[in-house]
Amino acid sequence: MDERVALGLVDDLVDAAGDDAAVLGETVVTIDMLHETTDFPAGTTRYTAGWRAVGASLSDVAAMGASATGAVGVYGAPSFDTDDVEAFVRGALDVCERVSAEYVGGDLDGHDEFTVATAALGETPTPVSRDGASGGEVVAVTGALGRSAAALDAFEAGDTERANELFRFTPRVGAGVALNGRASAMMDSSDGLARSLHQLSETSGVGFDVEGAAIPIHDALRGEDRLARATTFGEDFELVCTLPSEGVAPARAALDVPLTVVGDVTEAGVTMDGEALADRGYTHGE
Amino acid sequence: MDERVALGLVDDLVDAAGDDAAVLGETVVTIDMLHETTDFPAGTTRYTAGWRAVGASLSDVAAMGASATGAVGVYGAPSFDTDDVEAFVRGALDVCERVSAEYVGGDLDGHDEFTVATAALGETPTPVSRDGASGGEVVAVTGALGRSAAALDAFEAGDTERANELFRFTPRVGAGVALNGRASAMMDSSDGLARSLHQLSETSGVGFDVEGAAIPIHDALRGEDRLARATTFGEDFELVCTLPSEGVAPARAALDVPLTVVGDVTEAGVTMDGEALADRGYTHGE
Repeated sequence: MDERVALGLVDDLVDAAGDDAAVLGETVVTIDMLHETTDFPAGTTRYTAGWRAVGASLSDVAAMGASATGAVGVYGAPSFDTDDVEAFVRGALDVCERVSAEYVGGDLDGHDEFTVATAALGETPTPVSRDGASGGEVVAVTGALGRSAAALDAFEAGDTERANELFRFTPRVGAGVALNGRASAMMDSSDGLARSLHQLSETSGVGFDVEGAAIPIHDALRGEDRLARATTFGEDFELVCTLPSEGVAPARAALDVPLTVVGDVTEAGVTMDGEALADRGYTHGE
Repeated sequence: MDERVALGLVDDLVDAAGDDAAVLGETVVTIDMLHETTDFPAGTTRYTAGWRAVGASLSDVAAMGASATGAVGVYGAPSFDTDDVEAFVRGALDVCERVSAEYVGGDLDGHDEFTVATAALGETPTPVSRDGASGGEVVAVTGALGRSAAALDAFEAGDTERANELFRFTPRVGAGVALNGRASAMMDSSDGLARSLHQLSETSGVGFDVEGAAIPIHDALRGEDRLARATTFGEDFELVCTLPSEGVAPARAALDVPLTVVGDVTEAGVTMDGEALADRGYTHGE
């Protein structure tokens, strides 16, 4: 069973599942697990790992339109080197500080493979779910896509410092809060734009037609296939949201990051430049 | 660096660390990671794994004297078998139901080793920390110790059904709430009573003298070394707390589980029957 089928099963069993974060009253909570073989390429510093792992959870909070309150983490490794643990915790503290959240500690676990679990909490009386998109709206993304793909290229090219820098993204918590009340549906782009669109399509019962030329691609991503990689590579942590076209200008004025309209909400199907956009991207567990 | 030294480092870096759960306003939050080689002996069902992993986090919430509100989990495994995932989620749902919390979903992660991350949330305006014990008080434990040691014996004896049953403990959330305002310091016994006493001793700046004959040992634990195993094996999830001796009777009246006084709070040192009680038990990562 692939990850998405299994997640569907979890959704069936758990009433509250199926969004970027779970809702408990006015609290949103999310948990993630990242590990060396799939998430931290050779060269990833422990500082970057702490930043990125906690950042991924904070991104889920952002996607609910919630302010981030705090995060906790577990550092799992075969041994606990002082410098490594300290660097990880400093990365976790710094990414939390970036979004005005508190990193309030965590635990250690002896684990053969370097494995990190993180949970983040947020607060909002009105979480933004994935199911509110409707025809006639537009679909927009914050920032630029392809940053993590560019980081991978930099790791492969041996430019480890630049790669780590690219890996340390800013979770879009401020943007998420500003889009709350403006966006009809929202999620993050952690599995890639293509997959995000398919997921929003499924949960909202709509379609999307996006324009390739409109997709904001991170400057650091080079190569002829940069559009395809920006669209499907994933592991970016931008927000993908729908909103009425007349809401775009006021939303932009409220945001501290660029908001780019990439296409329209349609009745059904997900297309790019009129052609079917495959539901492919990063599926954890494949 | 062993786990406790590393955790001390985390405490130094993170103001809020160093208790069973972290405190964010009136919310307490905790995260744990469990995995096959150290936490789930062969024969542990996925239902039991879900129950136990989420239960371990709920136990941390209980140790803060908080009511449990909800929990989330990540199921990490090499593949996602329908029955396995469903059993895990059902275990998580059932242990949450046992303590009136909600299991609100989670995620899946492809992982070579079966690895589970869980986070639990609770609410209390007055969390009970580990540092409030003072001389002249008594130290008490809920329920009985040695249940997990007995489970291990049952796994080894091939009585898998009984072992799984013993592994599915009830997190002491109700007791934790009832002890809030009564206990001066509290933590859970997940690393064993001996280690809990040493930790309370360190954080509260006191000592303990416990009476071996007073320690409540789970009926299922057999053998000549049952006192030693009940004291040091750990992986139980009872509450260890300090309170004034005159508070014991009213506390008992408020609790739905037995509360047994096992000794006195002293000025310094941890002893059992007057002899030094070694600071040994279960250290994750050893």
